[in-house]
Amino acid sequence: MRGKPLVAVVSAGISKFGRMDAYTGRDLFLEAVDETFNRCPNLDPKMDIDAVFVGMMSEAFEHQGHVAPMLSHSAGLLSAPAIRTEVACASSAAALRLGIFSILSGMYDVVLVGGVEKMTKRTTPEATEFLGMAADFPFEQWTGVTFPGLYALMAMAHMHKYGTSEEQMGLVAVKNHHNGALNPKAHLQREVTLDKVLSSRMIAYPLKLYDCSLISDGASCAIITRPDIARKFTDTPVYIIGSGHGSDALGLFERDDLTSLMATRRAAKEAYEMAGIEPKDVDVAEVHDCFTIAEIMAYEDLGFCKPGEGGRFIEDGTPMLDGELPVNTSGGLKAKGHPVGATGIAQIYEIFLQLTGQADKRQVDGCRIGLAHNVGGSGASCFVHILRGEM
Amino acid sequence: MRGKPLVAVVSAGISKFGRMDAYTGRDLFLEAVDETFNRCPNLDPKMDIDAVFVGMMSEAFEHQGHVAPMLSHSAGLLSAPAIRTEVACASSAAALRLGIFSILSGMYDVVLVGGVEKMTKRTTPEATEFLGMAADFPFEQWTGVTFPGLYALMAMAHMHKYGTSEEQMGLVAVKNHHNGALNPKAHLQREVTLDKVLSSRMIAYPLKLYDCSLISDGASCAIITRPDIARKFTDTPVYIIGSGHGSDALGLFERDDLTSLMATRRAAKEAYEMAGIEPKDVDVAEVHDCFTIAEIMAYEDLGFCKPGEGGRFIEDGTPMLDGELPVNTSGGLKAKGHPVGATGIAQIYEIFLQLTGQADKRQVDGCRIGLAHNVGGSGASCFVHILRGEM
Repeated sequence: MRGKPLVAVVSAGISKFGRMDAYTGRDLFLEAVDETFNRCPNLDPKMDIDAVFVGMMSEAFEHQGHVAPMLSHSAGLLSAPAIRTEVACASSAAALRLGIFSILSGMYDVVLVGGVEKMTKRTTPEATEFLGMAADFPFEQWTGVTFPGLYALMAMAHMHKYGTSEEQMGLVAVKNHHNGALNPKAHLQREVTLDKVLSSRMIAYPLKLYDCSLISDGASCAIITRPDIARKFTDTPVYIIGSGHGSDALGLFERDDLTSLMATRRAAKEAYEMAGIEPKDVDVAEVHDCFTIAEIMAYEDLGFCKPGEGGRFIEDGTPMLDGELPVNTSGGLKAKGHPVGATGIAQIYEIFLQLTGQADKRQVDGCRIGLAHNVGGSGASCFVHILRGEM
Repeated sequence: MRGKPLVAVVSAGISKFGRMDAYTGRDLFLEAVDETFNRCPNLDPKMDIDAVFVGMMSEAFEHQGHVAPMLSHSAGLLSAPAIRTEVACASSAAALRLGIFSILSGMYDVVLVGGVEKMTKRTTPEATEFLGMAADFPFEQWTGVTFPGLYALMAMAHMHKYGTSEEQMGLVAVKNHHNGALNPKAHLQREVTLDKVLSSRMIAYPLKLYDCSLISDGASCAIITRPDIARKFTDTPVYIIGSGHGSDALGLFERDDLTSLMATRRAAKEAYEMAGIEPKDVDVAEVHDCFTIAEIMAYEDLGFCKPGEGGRFIEDGTPMLDGELPVNTSGGLKAKGHPVGATGIAQIYEIFLQLTGQADKRQVDGCRIGLAHNVGGSGASCFVHILRGEM
């Protein structure tokens, strides 16, 4: 069974990410759906799509729950039953995984998966509070800690145990801004220097403004099908050959180690085994860089380097766009933006573009195996998906 | 394939429903999990449970999102990856359906599904507002309409088109309070007279206080497995032989007919076809009586009677505990209570008890086929599950 395609991705799309003042979440979702349908003219949405799974983190942002049938209906898919999934910032990777299950179960043949979050009509303190609901209420939120604070604790532990430096974290931001500047859908399309990162405003020591991902609006979408019918819809399907999901305790205080996410290690193990590949086989990856330290931990937990060597991994240039294993070619959460519910499938979109040779100025030559890594909250949830192109 | 078991339910449990002042949602979930594990001593939770799917409507009630890994970890299931589903008041039926898919996909063998909502620590206006998030924000919430108002519109349409009376709706309340009085887990365990229902305070004409279900705290849980391994865990498995899911437009104004829920008709069609049965084969049913009119519409949309005959169906006594097709033997949302995220799997729990002869004073003799019908919001989502016992 190893390496056997679970499903095919036959199309994908995302909205512009950013502060999209005139757009509701519904509008942004339709923008992502439009790109997806336009890439796949052989698909008849009303006839072909059997079901919809959509990830969204919080109804608080738009005072709107029960979004799945609303988005499905707005997209013209009234006959496709729709379910929302929520596991904080990994909500749409969960939608993808359940879409995969639904196809493997034999219940559906063609499924639309997506994600959305409309965050910027709220003030930053409001958005910080709503995001904070993904942390443990009695034991974390109540103490006043927010997500920058939680990841700052992890960064401190990593620095203490491994000697990871603020400069190494800053290099993640420099890399991802470089890539984001090449991505017309990215929230921030501008380069930053290491000096600018290091001298930016302190948010929660050692994390500075440029160590943090963005509060963005955006939506994402993909169409997945049974592998054997994929060529009805596209000449360039991409196959998902591994799907992994790990959970962990919600509160940091309940974990044995703050320098590594067990949920990532579990999800990666499941995905690599299913795909029958090893970390060294990955050609391009999108990882969950909600904070720069999170990307460094991801290098380690995904097996791209050994524990404690994540800082050197970026310093050596390996994950650069022209490096040996380009990471976050889209700009990542850091520069492309992080509309939380949309992020998981926006990563799949970038890998889909890369593996079909459509990533334009960000194209990684000759890539065949891609990996997407999406984390919920401070790491109580993680999904890893492994994709294979045909090039 | 018709009538072939999809999965087996090998155990189930619910917390006490009601105003549970000293309990958080987490506590209530553990109470439901405890009953579930206690009923199934052959199950080793830490070893046997592969994954957790949990339904919850709104993180606003307890300022807590990302509940799936929190609840999974609190239940001692740290190694089981967990996902939350949300489709308003049908959130846990969605968790069940995805649990079924996950087993059919071959990815998991034993899955814990559940639901939770902790509603009563909020004021009634707050709870009404949070519940209202399941309606369309720009087109419904914004006008000031709440759920009693939306169902009142449906009741008015039904009265106008079919001559359904306030007395007929009131009889639904009388029946469900009668059943709830026999259920030690019910929120309200007391009978009401038709006179009391009809003279109760007007909420949204024609719906009076006793036409409305309750704002409750509660949680529910069930263990589902591959049918072929069910007997490892219990001598009395119940099989799910049909699962249906329908969606519709979120806003009432976008629907062709207010006297019927298309989502229910779609879900019922799928479930009946999969199960290879007809409505007349159903021996006992739990239906979504968020308001009394909703139960009358459910009789019709599930095919228990013809369109427009739901009022007479209750008047004739057919759905009474000693009638031909007992409906809501648990007391339903009306008397057992409606902690929205928990409701779908609490219905499965009641059917599980009935089909295994464990429903005590509410036991329906000789029942073999049970049906559970769970609606989200004003009917944009609906799930129907059909279960078969071995008696």
